[in-house]
Amino acid sequence: MELTVFSDERFMKEALKEAQKAFEADEVPVGAVVVHKNTIIARAHNYTEHLNDVTAHAEMQAFTAAADYLGSKYLDECTLYVTLEPCVMCAGAAFWTQIGKVVFGAADERRGYRAAAEKSILHPKTEVVNGIMAEECGALVKNFFKSKR
Amino acid sequence: MELTVFSDERFMKEALKEAQKAFEADEVPVGAVVVHKNTIIARAHNYTEHLNDVTAHAEMQAFTAAADYLGSKYLDECTLYVTLEPCVMCAGAAFWTQIGKVVFGAADERRGYRAAAEKSILHPKTEVVNGIMAEECGALVKNFFKSKR
Repeated sequence: MELTVFSDERFMKEALKEAQKAFEADEVPVGAVVVHKNTIIARAHNYTEHLNDVTAHAEMQAFTAAADYLGSKYLDECTLYVTLEPCVMCAGAAFWTQIGKVVFGAADERRGYRAAAEKSILHPKTEVVNGIMAEECGALVKNFFKSKR
Repeated sequence: MELTVFSDERFMKEALKEAQKAFEADEVPVGAVVVHKNTIIARAHNYTEHLNDVTAHAEMQAFTAAADYLGSKYLDECTLYVTLEPCVMCAGAAFWTQIGKVVFGAADERRGYRAAAEKSILHPKTEVVNGIMAEECGALVKNFFKSKR
């Protein structure tokens, strides 16, 4: 039996905890963690309303915090776990970080980075895994917008 | 004779002053200002080395500062002046701000947002002007990289 202590699901659950915090704070519920050598070195959730700043997506804050923690601009040995497919801004930021791997939960067909360009806007060295806990991650966002109607 | 006190050149000169500060601080020399009703409400230059943070582009900082100044997430009544064509991350951020107008100086054929996607990744309501003081803006970047070789 394979040990799955450090599985993608394990870390996505932590990203989902962050998304839940965003939900409770009346923010669009997206959460992220950055993992380095199986250790979470940054956690963040969407904070755009609180900070009155559209750039305060979970991923942006997580990148800044992870770089600060490592003392390195580049996150090539790190993995980003994020509950929703990154937008163009966040994928563009991921490019600059040269992050090793991006794992996301639910797809964002409207605002996700994959809809914006034919070729990926992530760094060519960045591995991508998607659909991890997609249902739970997507349900949180759907419930949020349903509650706003 | 048309009065050109508030011309695009007038404000691009201010963005260029910011880029010059970046050059002197040994940062990739890109500068930006955000203008609201003919008043500069935010100024910033690239600060990625100093902050050890690849997301600290001039535009990102200028958007955050402008939103803070106005107390509004949206910059639809503002113009961004930036010395170099925004990258994908910054254009993606500009999308979220719904900024009224983007004026840039030099083109960035390699990393500019226009190379990334067929359709513009800026907001459909955002007006774009390019090539303002392109020579001066581009020369600063070229000189910077020449000095690094």
